[in-house]
Amino acid sequence: MKLLRYGPKGHEKPGLLDDSGGIRDLSGQVTDITPDLIHGEGLSRLMQIDPASLPVVEGPVRHGVPLSGSRKFIAIGLNFADHAAESGLPEPSEPVIFMKAISCLSGPDDDVVIPRGSLKTDWEVELGIVIGKPASYVELPDALDHVAGYVLINDVSERAYQIERGGTWDKGKGCDTFGPVGPWLVTSDEVADVQNLDMWLDLNGKRMQTGNTRTMIFGVAEIVSYVSHFMTLEPGDLITTGTPPGVGLGQKPEPLYLKPGDVMRLGIEGLGEQSQTVVPWRAAGSGDVA
Amino acid sequence: MKLLRYGPKGHEKPGLLDDSGGIRDLSGQVTDITPDLIHGEGLSRLMQIDPASLPVVEGPVRHGVPLSGSRKFIAIGLNFADHAAESGLPEPSEPVIFMKAISCLSGPDDDVVIPRGSLKTDWEVELGIVIGKPASYVELPDALDHVAGYVLINDVSERAYQIERGGTWDKGKGCDTFGPVGPWLVTSDEVADVQNLDMWLDLNGKRMQTGNTRTMIFGVAEIVSYVSHFMTLEPGDLITTGTPPGVGLGQKPEPLYLKPGDVMRLGIEGLGEQSQTVVPWRAAGSGDVA
Repeated sequence: MKLLRYGPKGHEKPGLLDDSGGIRDLSGQVTDITPDLIHGEGLSRLMQIDPASLPVVEGPVRHGVPLSGSRKFIAIGLNFADHAAESGLPEPSEPVIFMKAISCLSGPDDDVVIPRGSLKTDWEVELGIVIGKPASYVELPDALDHVAGYVLINDVSERAYQIERGGTWDKGKGCDTFGPVGPWLVTSDEVADVQNLDMWLDLNGKRMQTGNTRTMIFGVAEIVSYVSHFMTLEPGDLITTGTPPGVGLGQKPEPLYLKPGDVMRLGIEGLGEQSQTVVPWRAAGSGDVA
Repeated sequence: MKLLRYGPKGHEKPGLLDDSGGIRDLSGQVTDITPDLIHGEGLSRLMQIDPASLPVVEGPVRHGVPLSGSRKFIAIGLNFADHAAESGLPEPSEPVIFMKAISCLSGPDDDVVIPRGSLKTDWEVELGIVIGKPASYVELPDALDHVAGYVLINDVSERAYQIERGGTWDKGKGCDTFGPVGPWLVTSDEVADVQNLDMWLDLNGKRMQTGNTRTMIFGVAEIVSYVSHFMTLEPGDLITTGTPPGVGLGQKPEPLYLKPGDVMRLGIEGLGEQSQTVVPWRAAGSGDVA
């Protein structure tokens, strides 16, 4: 099942994707796609519904984050050996955890805003895990039982804030609009092998990142188990799992960063595609601020 | 006004402290102490109420976190020069930001659970800021307008996870029960000078930390302004502002860490006191796990 939320920001309705790629309205069945819904019975109840019996949603729609009410947005750093190399950092011996501010969540095709004065905003196509069952000290063989599904994420990053401004990476990872998620929450049953999914990102039509989840240093099960030893994972929590090579920071001979007007297009096999236009920061009230 | 939430975990009711230190029941006025309530009109409406007109809450009660629905739990590191020195780290030239997992929030007197296998759990008495109005790129002179009030926080930390396990500090800061907050949310109007508040922490009756917010490297206004340049702060967001010297990591000749049975008692002038008993981790279902 591919769950989604569509409509204006802050007023999204729940929906799902039917077999022909059309959007069906779920608002007669559930009020929203929430942690409560994906925890336990909610999902299996939805799976009983024949999509063809649901109202068709016509015309182009804005996609929102495919679930609401997530409380944590956790991230794993340097989880592809080649990306660690291009960042000039050693391959980690255990998962690197950092956090994205929950307020950075953004629709998959919403504009990405360059922070005021920022010169080093960068892209990262990533596989995101959506937790379905509470997970605390979960052992490896049980870890995937705690996953409701997967999402496509662009882990947008400001490299100067992340690396040059002191303290942890969090400073450059949680700016507003730095967390495009979606278009769909794809339930685990639809992902035959989460460790064999192609992933890619284009900047202005040029392929920048190419990868596959098979080259992750720590796989999905290992990540869920590992993180659950440091905090309880709750239904709706998101974990973004690291990016393959080809980010702006790693370009040769010079790093390449985003500028207004740039368009990112990214995708993961089976999880859909995103497209974001990069826009400059504008003071609230001065125009089309995101 | 001193707002609070009392009752069993997950079932707290809203209340306030009256002039004689008694708890009054606010549940006839509001359903809960939430970001919506403290944003704008809600607080001023509550301030019109004569506490003497509210029902008295009898007997000892458990205190919960004094507000619900916070979305971000941001932390500032090494914000006291002496604490930076005892940590063996240079004084930061700009605020160090890290994040505590929102799931670590805990009542001010709830047990603190030592993570499974942990040997280096430590204490940190800190002043917490509660955001009252959205803050994005806020300049210094306006910063305090965005603060609803202040809370006492114990920024409990696992030093091995924080420092020795790779990646960011977040790994050792967000374990379950690592965020005792309260007992009260003290509104800004009741804090004459937030940069002149005594703070202290006792371990098993022995004074370990003594400090005053006047020796913070970056003050409250500067912190709010600074953080708001990296993410939008939302009503209900918490920012814990760093700890004075005297943490376990800094003890001589050897660091001293928490063990089961230890009791921490801590306070900040005007913001109340907390007391936590340290307990070992236990598997769910095997006993009195927090």
